[in-house]
Amino acid sequence: MTQFDKRNISMMMDFYEMTMANGYFKNGGENTQVAFDVFYRRNPDGGGFAIFAGLEQIIEYIENMHFREEDVEYFRAQNLFDEGFLNYLKDFRFHGDIYSFPEGTIMYPNEPFMTVIADLIDAQLIETSILTQINHQSLIATKARRIVRAAEGRFVSDFGARRAHNMDAATLGARAAFIGGVNGTATVSAGQSFGIPVNGTMAHSWIMYFRDEFDAFKRYAEVYPQSTVLLVDTYDVIHSGVPNAIRIAKEVLEPMGNRLKGVRVDSGDLAYLSKRVRKMLDDAGLTDCKIIVSNSLDEFTITSLLNQGAAIDSFGVGERLITAKSEPVFGAVYKIVAVNEGGEFLPRIKVSENVGKITNPGLKNVYRIYDENNQAVADMLALMDEEVDLSKPFRYIDPVKPWKQREFKNCTAKKLLKLYVKDGRRVENLPTLQEIRDYVKNQLSNEIWQEEQRFENPHHHYLDMTPNYYEMKMNLLYKTRSQFNS
Amino acid sequence: MTQFDKRNISMMMDFYEMTMANGYFKNGGENTQVAFDVFYRRNPDGGGFAIFAGLEQIIEYIENMHFREEDVEYFRAQNLFDEGFLNYLKDFRFHGDIYSFPEGTIMYPNEPFMTVIADLIDAQLIETSILTQINHQSLIATKARRIVRAAEGRFVSDFGARRAHNMDAATLGARAAFIGGVNGTATVSAGQSFGIPVNGTMAHSWIMYFRDEFDAFKRYAEVYPQSTVLLVDTYDVIHSGVPNAIRIAKEVLEPMGNRLKGVRVDSGDLAYLSKRVRKMLDDAGLTDCKIIVSNSLDEFTITSLLNQGAAIDSFGVGERLITAKSEPVFGAVYKIVAVNEGGEFLPRIKVSENVGKITNPGLKNVYRIYDENNQAVADMLALMDEEVDLSKPFRYIDPVKPWKQREFKNCTAKKLLKLYVKDGRRVENLPTLQEIRDYVKNQLSNEIWQEEQRFENPHHHYLDMTPNYYEMKMNLLYKTRSQFNS
Repeated sequence: MTQFDKRNISMMMDFYEMTMANGYFKNGGENTQVAFDVFYRRNPDGGGFAIFAGLEQIIEYIENMHFREEDVEYFRAQNLFDEGFLNYLKDFRFHGDIYSFPEGTIMYPNEPFMTVIADLIDAQLIETSILTQINHQSLIATKARRIVRAAEGRFVSDFGARRAHNMDAATLGARAAFIGGVNGTATVSAGQSFGIPVNGTMAHSWIMYFRDEFDAFKRYAEVYPQSTVLLVDTYDVIHSGVPNAIRIAKEVLEPMGNRLKGVRVDSGDLAYLSKRVRKMLDDAGLTDCKIIVSNSLDEFTITSLLNQGAAIDSFGVGERLITAKSEPVFGAVYKIVAVNEGGEFLPRIKVSENVGKITNPGLKNVYRIYDENNQAVADMLALMDEEVDLSKPFRYIDPVKPWKQREFKNCTAKKLLKLYVKDGRRVENLPTLQEIRDYVKNQLSNEIWQEEQRFENPHHHYLDMTPNYYEMKMNLLYKTRSQFNS
Repeated sequence: MTQFDKRNISMMMDFYEMTMANGYFKNGGENTQVAFDVFYRRNPDGGGFAIFAGLEQIIEYIENMHFREEDVEYFRAQNLFDEGFLNYLKDFRFHGDIYSFPEGTIMYPNEPFMTVIADLIDAQLIETSILTQINHQSLIATKARRIVRAAEGRFVSDFGARRAHNMDAATLGARAAFIGGVNGTATVSAGQSFGIPVNGTMAHSWIMYFRDEFDAFKRYAEVYPQSTVLLVDTYDVIHSGVPNAIRIAKEVLEPMGNRLKGVRVDSGDLAYLSKRVRKMLDDAGLTDCKIIVSNSLDEFTITSLLNQGAAIDSFGVGERLITAKSEPVFGAVYKIVAVNEGGEFLPRIKVSENVGKITNPGLKNVYRIYDENNQAVADMLALMDEEVDLSKPFRYIDPVKPWKQREFKNCTAKKLLKLYVKDGRRVENLPTLQEIRDYVKNQLSNEIWQEEQRFENPHHHYLDMTPNYYEMKMNLLYKTRSQFNS
């Protein structure tokens, strides 16, 4: 496989998916239906939520998944696999159903945001790719949202490509960052593939090639008179860069009827420098000239800069966004929750000494509950075939304090898991990337409590249960624990 | 671009590479030759060195780089680019030369491990892809080496695919981890693409599908009697998993003439559990059964486990390896160091208030200096055309203490920058991945001081200069500083 080949990402999986699949095949399990849930356990960076991203790429993967002759040959050469199974792989296509939250949905720990219902082998083989896609894109979308929040409405652009964990981390990371709310990207492949606005002007090499800073600025301004943004920190921001930029505005741009659009500072004390630069620009009548900063920024440095009164209009955010540096792992997992035995899906539970690691068993749906002000007050697990009617007061279980009588009053409920893939083909039109981004913004502006959005000790969203779901889980837990007598 | 298309990663670049290229084109600079160095400034995780990885993918990229009709159309639609330049892009191929350290070379801060000498536009357009590839693979190779060192000869396998930053990060990350010394990977696409040994057995879903742990183990052992490794922590390691595994060894495998190869523990207190499990296995006569552990491991947890006397034969290392979690950014940069003016490469320098950020200007080579025991005592920058003869004592400059008279005696020198690409085509055969891995291992075993390899306060490798190189740099620095009068 080279980077220029037609890619078949079907082979991007953990080897154990295939050893298990072969084992299931030899045990006659290939036609048994099972259900797997995808969920995560902890919000990154101590935040109050995460943003679900990557669904479009998962569906594309599901629809295209196949094994080429050379792939089957690779497995054959491992001397582990049954010949009948290898033949089965040749014609393999994914034939299951996938329920999912819409892409861009605000999500919380321990609730399934995706459920795969499929034949055992089908469900097993897609595990790694689904997790990789979700774990990457949700990580970056969630991180991007934090940075955008810190920037308080200022322009934020992804500058991270060169520090991304290789090519599609740069491209799909830019996609995820756009979902999370950044305004643009410097990454051309992301602009081209996903229609994200691209931006970028010059590097230090432009200045150093021409050697004389004024000359370098002048030549740039003459090529791009309507969008001149000058990098002013190659030699000395205050004594060289900004004075030269002001001369460009006066001597080159204004005679042509153009304005200097911006200056960029990529090093030094950005709080101090931005204020000095603002004053210099304003004194020269360039009050409309924007100040763009970059250099190892994230939500923490941006918050600090703005608290210091930094005069910044736009942030270029690189390595700490594209790698989610403060916490570069998103921990979504893929767990079996039900097995179809004799036509009925029987729940499975993973018991753990750690109560937080006990899975939520069985087929289920997730409802988001809204109060009369359209604020999301809780999410609620229900049996999959259970209809939840909130037109009258509805008793629910808070699993942390199950002895308390609680009910939703004057609330509405929205089912979050929707059927996206049926028998291996998409059955739902997917939104555009812009629509996904707008959906994120709308939820955060109108539905999600501000208390869940703050960085410090955010409010924890409730994950409640219908009485029916709670009873099923408790019964199963009791049965399983007594089986192991512990 | 979908994940299944033939990829043209030529478009994975920062947009400013293209705005600069268009600017150079319009300023008549397209035939000026320049030199860019690639170097980094700080070792990750406070370590003493880094491992250079990614060269093979860079050369492949360089040889294939081109812009398709649709790519040119994308740029045209930005309404920024000159029509002559867009035509030029259609036929663009990289025509420059690339000097590089061999892949797998141990490298140190502030020395160029790659130099690109090319026409200005050629050199500029490849910046982002070169940096992304190096920054990703060198990051993971360097991290992998730390983990392998901590494991003290035990088997280490990459289990990270599902937490990687998307598909390339999983596959090329596994390649880099193998260069860094891991023994295998669970990622099939990496095994297939690069010939890395793959491994993997079962997930918790296998156990939970069959519901009864003994039954699940039995069915696995019957399919893979010669390579049975059982995951023993689904319910209770001590009271269920290991007793069932021992029964499998006795009742299923031994009657067939096979041995239980291993048990895997993926949760809980691995120090405590591994010792308990070892005793249980030994007491049952399964002294040859290996104990494999996984679960958020890295060099720090592995060191701690081994310090506690954990009985572990093999480590599966996932998220903290594949994302280099402790420090997920490798900061290689690409800086212009010389411009050909009238047939001569004149050096360029980037001056900074921070002495550590002053670049090393001009065309140069890097020598690694070995003492009579073949230990690498220093690296040394020399002018590119300067011959360094160590057959007699050689005076050099320690740039940190330039006033001291120092010389290399009884030393040998090896030139590290070699010509890999000439006029856009490779002129050097590339080693196999196994050869790169062996080269890393050989350097660390035989050439690199152990004091540079420890985790705590490692010795800092010297970067010295020949008197000629030092004089050139100082002259240029003086000239440049006096120009800015600061």
